[in-house]
Amino acid sequence: MADASTIRWTTNPVAGGVTAPKGFTSAALHCGIKAKAGALDLTVIAANAPVPAAGLFTTNLAQAAPVLLSKQHLDKTGGLARAVVINSGCANACTGTQGLADAVQMAAEAASCLGCSVDQVLVASTGVIGVNLTMAKVAPGIRTAVSQLAPGKGSETARAIMTTDPFPKEDAVRVETAAGSFIVGGTAKGSGMIEPNMATMIGLLTTDAQVPPALLRRALAESARDTFNAITVDGECSTNDTLFALASGASGVIIDEESYAALLDGLLAVSRKLAVDIVRGGEGATKVIRVTVQDARTMDEARQVARTIANSPLVKTAVHGADPNWGRIVAAAGRSGVTFDVNRASVLVGGVLLFENGLPHDESAPVAAEHMKGTDIDITVHLGTGGAIDATIWTCDLSAEYVRINGEYRT
Amino acid sequence: MADASTIRWTTNPVAGGVTAPKGFTSAALHCGIKAKAGALDLTVIAANAPVPAAGLFTTNLAQAAPVLLSKQHLDKTGGLARAVVINSGCANACTGTQGLADAVQMAAEAASCLGCSVDQVLVASTGVIGVNLTMAKVAPGIRTAVSQLAPGKGSETARAIMTTDPFPKEDAVRVETAAGSFIVGGTAKGSGMIEPNMATMIGLLTTDAQVPPALLRRALAESARDTFNAITVDGECSTNDTLFALASGASGVIIDEESYAALLDGLLAVSRKLAVDIVRGGEGATKVIRVTVQDARTMDEARQVARTIANSPLVKTAVHGADPNWGRIVAAAGRSGVTFDVNRASVLVGGVLLFENGLPHDESAPVAAEHMKGTDIDITVHLGTGGAIDATIWTCDLSAEYVRINGEYRT
Repeated sequence: MADASTIRWTTNPVAGGVTAPKGFTSAALHCGIKAKAGALDLTVIAANAPVPAAGLFTTNLAQAAPVLLSKQHLDKTGGLARAVVINSGCANACTGTQGLADAVQMAAEAASCLGCSVDQVLVASTGVIGVNLTMAKVAPGIRTAVSQLAPGKGSETARAIMTTDPFPKEDAVRVETAAGSFIVGGTAKGSGMIEPNMATMIGLLTTDAQVPPALLRRALAESARDTFNAITVDGECSTNDTLFALASGASGVIIDEESYAALLDGLLAVSRKLAVDIVRGGEGATKVIRVTVQDARTMDEARQVARTIANSPLVKTAVHGADPNWGRIVAAAGRSGVTFDVNRASVLVGGVLLFENGLPHDESAPVAAEHMKGTDIDITVHLGTGGAIDATIWTCDLSAEYVRINGEYRT
Repeated sequence: MADASTIRWTTNPVAGGVTAPKGFTSAALHCGIKAKAGALDLTVIAANAPVPAAGLFTTNLAQAAPVLLSKQHLDKTGGLARAVVINSGCANACTGTQGLADAVQMAAEAASCLGCSVDQVLVASTGVIGVNLTMAKVAPGIRTAVSQLAPGKGSETARAIMTTDPFPKEDAVRVETAAGSFIVGGTAKGSGMIEPNMATMIGLLTTDAQVPPALLRRALAESARDTFNAITVDGECSTNDTLFALASGASGVIIDEESYAALLDGLLAVSRKLAVDIVRGGEGATKVIRVTVQDARTMDEARQVARTIANSPLVKTAVHGADPNWGRIVAAAGRSGVTFDVNRASVLVGGVLLFENGLPHDESAPVAAEHMKGTDIDITVHLGTGGAIDATIWTCDLSAEYVRINGEYRT
């Protein structure tokens, strides 16, 4: 990035989550999708006017109705949105034409209350799949939520999008630049599902910087690459994964090519915090594992090796057991499809060298084992290809609790 | 294959495993690699003379010393072997130049006792990696084993290659053809490791048919494709995976292009039994899952979808919990990288249709759940691409026991 003499901005944490940036309000309530009385299951986040918006969506071929609809809306508007409606408890996925009609109605209810066009409302759902929404509960819920929109309710929104997430996830930072300061806020929910089902990541980022839609799309994609797209709990990719960004412009700070890096830095800071928190709250997770692959020839190769290690059940169970089992790491790298010379590779756990020149350093295993008893585990693999590309993927350990959560019958 | 009117052979089970075919002897003993007194950890299988041999090996870049050596030997001889030496309890992987020297010495000890050239001996090892063999125990063990070679000891060999496999795996069939009968026998060990470590599959097939080396190589590769290469326990590929085939010719039945299909049928029958038994004995496995993908455009695509479903932790935990969770199956297929229209696909569990035309058939879920309470679970996905290619992958469920086995510290 920049060296000390050229730093043109600073990034500091602030409170408020998704409503920390100026120009956003939200409301959350229990409309009755979740069985538990009072459990928040619906939230609306609104900008004061239609504002630049961008979205990233699951690459799964099976895409939920709200994903299909929100993509359409962003295409139609060219990247403008007035509000986002999110429900938890039902993913509205594999629900056929009725599901699509329900997603449209969700947007229409909010649009009619807010006085904007339907395609200026984005929709996301998370929860059990193959079940239709009870619109008799959801529709009045949306109308009530819009009537209760207010600033300072970011933490309610963070709770309303949870399913079996063990804790709510929100973050915000203030970016100070020579041209003034702006805020980036965000919330996300992760890979704990209501009733055992597939992981459905939903994230929402807001900023009061003034950002043209094209620049916002670029910044969202770039920041997600090394954050939300660099995490894995179990290698699954859901029908509903959705990440939105909205820019209200209310700070008056204009983002252009020159100040783009400051916006990116703010998005990265919030996204990294939320993404790692998703891993920390992964199903059955007791440890966060940071897998860094160094000396790769290309970014794709670095990420492929890191992802293979991060998704290896043998590596994940070894970490769960605090076992510095470098052999499993070498074997995972070796089957990743990326070519390298094992005899030039090395493996470090917690910064401790365990494998080098084709031979183990078992004398160091006890020190690495001590590191692995903690909650944040570092695995580094040098590929020794002579390349200079690094990549990092975050994952969690694999525990018996993961099996319990996902092996219980839905009913 | 052939319709009833053109069947030219029959295949029937016989006893004897790897020494059921004529012309093979074996011996197994405890040389001291395994700590437990009397636990078989070394076996030699010998043909009465150097005979056609073929091998298939792990595609992992990290290859154990015995894999590297056996590949060299088969290359040098053009596919001839007198004997196979296999030890369990130590994989001789990631053991550097000393490991390679030890593998060479294993072959040399057997060769010197048998009076053949070193490169006519194949070697395989399975067990913990990163640890060197204690050759002071292994070398005399090999000499003793060669002195004890005898027919009828196939089941001892099957036990000697086990690590934490829950049961020994062997099989044999007699193939009756118009030109006479021959036998195919085999043994294999799977994915239960001595001390938690990576899966190291080892298989050995024998036949008393007379088969030229090139034809044996082709038959081994073809039979493995839909058997040993169509199973997965946890998506891991080890440093040691090895599959050998030896053909003694002692039955006098000559295999040529015309009778090739009879040999292939025998190899397939034994390999399928052993491969599915490996899955059945997978770490923590309580159920065997047969994933069949139909209507794919190519075999690669059919296998890719089947493998993605078979390796999905969410599918495997759902099966463990007898949950007919078709949504996870659809989602795994959808992220497999193969293009298909989800609205034309369908999912059956135990022959019961659960998803079709983009919509669930939840009314059938209880019948499917009943099927899933058994030990052999069938999952079928029709991709509806208009193609006509099917593929099957076998896997097992994912249980808390898998996590326990692999999460315990090695020491």
